[in-house]
Amino acid sequence: MTKQDIIHQIFKKKSYLCVGLDTDPLKIPRHLLDCPDPVFEFNKQIIDATRDYCVAYKPNIAFYEAAGRKGWESLQKTLEYIPKDCLTIADAKRGDIGNTSGLYARAFFDKSASGLDFDAVTVAPYMGEDSVQPFLEYPGKWVILLALTSNSGARDFQNSELTEGGRLFEKVLKTSQAWGSEENLMYVVGATQARSLEDIRKIVPGHFLLIPGVGAQGGSLEEVSRYGLNSECGLLVNSSRGIIYASSGEDFADRAREEAAVIQKEMATYLHMTGV
Amino acid sequence: MTKQDIIHQIFKKKSYLCVGLDTDPLKIPRHLLDCPDPVFEFNKQIIDATRDYCVAYKPNIAFYEAAGRKGWESLQKTLEYIPKDCLTIADAKRGDIGNTSGLYARAFFDKSASGLDFDAVTVAPYMGEDSVQPFLEYPGKWVILLALTSNSGARDFQNSELTEGGRLFEKVLKTSQAWGSEENLMYVVGATQARSLEDIRKIVPGHFLLIPGVGAQGGSLEEVSRYGLNSECGLLVNSSRGIIYASSGEDFADRAREEAAVIQKEMATYLHMTGV
Repeated sequence: MTKQDIIHQIFKKKSYLCVGLDTDPLKIPRHLLDCPDPVFEFNKQIIDATRDYCVAYKPNIAFYEAAGRKGWESLQKTLEYIPKDCLTIADAKRGDIGNTSGLYARAFFDKSASGLDFDAVTVAPYMGEDSVQPFLEYPGKWVILLALTSNSGARDFQNSELTEGGRLFEKVLKTSQAWGSEENLMYVVGATQARSLEDIRKIVPGHFLLIPGVGAQGGSLEEVSRYGLNSECGLLVNSSRGIIYASSGEDFADRAREEAAVIQKEMATYLHMTGV
Repeated sequence: MTKQDIIHQIFKKKSYLCVGLDTDPLKIPRHLLDCPDPVFEFNKQIIDATRDYCVAYKPNIAFYEAAGRKGWESLQKTLEYIPKDCLTIADAKRGDIGNTSGLYARAFFDKSASGLDFDAVTVAPYMGEDSVQPFLEYPGKWVILLALTSNSGARDFQNSELTEGGRLFEKVLKTSQAWGSEENLMYVVGATQARSLEDIRKIVPGHFLLIPGVGAQGGSLEEVSRYGLNSECGLLVNSSRGIIYASSGEDFADRAREEAAVIQKEMATYLHMTGV
């Protein structure tokens, strides 16, 4: 999926919402537990309920891996069920030496090898260029590189001041721009770091940013939008728990639709206000 | 597996060798390709051939994930086949916000959930304390945290000088010591960084270090041992390609045995010289 394809979807749906499929088998409504694959059934109903209000889906790979082989089956079926006009993001936070990252790229991008064919994968930057490059070599695919994350641990290393100037996450943003382009590289910036978005937009004015942390983690959609939107939108804002676990009862899909619709409506306002 | 168990094995076998099971379906000898599970058959024969010469096995998770669901089956069978007196390391380089890292811990440590029951998992430090803590909460399990890796990209960020003093990888070593202990936390230090081991041993004199990069990546076992060994050994040195792909023919297991035996013999000398 190209950058233009993503922007087209955002304009069409007036939404930059990404729905996070952090599907925990322990949190699935009881009435689904008799299905042959409760995780897939849950995801299927969530996708049906939210597809008109979002432009991307982001399965969190940990939740599937925790169920082993069976989890990979649920993941594969889920990915195949996501509408083709939505960006699909494997939230995997991988990164290893070059030849190993090449195998992870095969895992998430090469359907003939692994059964999976995501549009994008999240990657951790700690191991540097050769750990990221193999993902960027797949035409039409995206790397979403961790820059400044939404969790408390972001303070431990990402904010460290460097003698050469700037903080570590700023160096990640600056250095990695040479590895890819606005057409195949996005960045993760946590919604809890909304104020940093002003500084971040000075370094990467044109790149898309994936923003987790709205909702359960406490980030504000209004702040994120104010500091992060650019003339092409440039944002994908993720909500996981706030949507998919809006209800734990039989009405979970209806409640997810309502939550997604509320967010989409708010996003339409910000897009309008910004003149996007 | 406790630190004392690991040390006991090292003394008994006079070896601190870890065999990396980076098993690429494309590199498996032809005569195995008719087996129902060629990857497992290959690993089984490698394990049989090398088990007397090593104290740990480290499947590189990317290689299994690249084959999707089938890869997880091969991984599970491989893990079950590894002798119980060897440390098992999931080289996964995971790390995410706390609740997600908890799911990754479940994936690698909780057999009842995922079918996998590794002793240790490699973790990336970029996201800080809450991304590492969930792994440390499993009694008897190990986190092996990336400090200074063996690849060229290690120079991009890990060596960055901080205004507070020291380099990023040194801050990772110092900060993370408070998260765990010598009984549940090791560090990855690439063999290509042997000279840095002197500095690293000043920060973490007692922790075990997992050293990849000997062999195909160009690291020297002699240098690594000189700068890295401590009074309890304190090292696990990994070799993957140099052992498992020593031959691509029908004699692959015999050649793997020979390579492992050569390394073990060299290690016995260094242990003797150091008086361990």
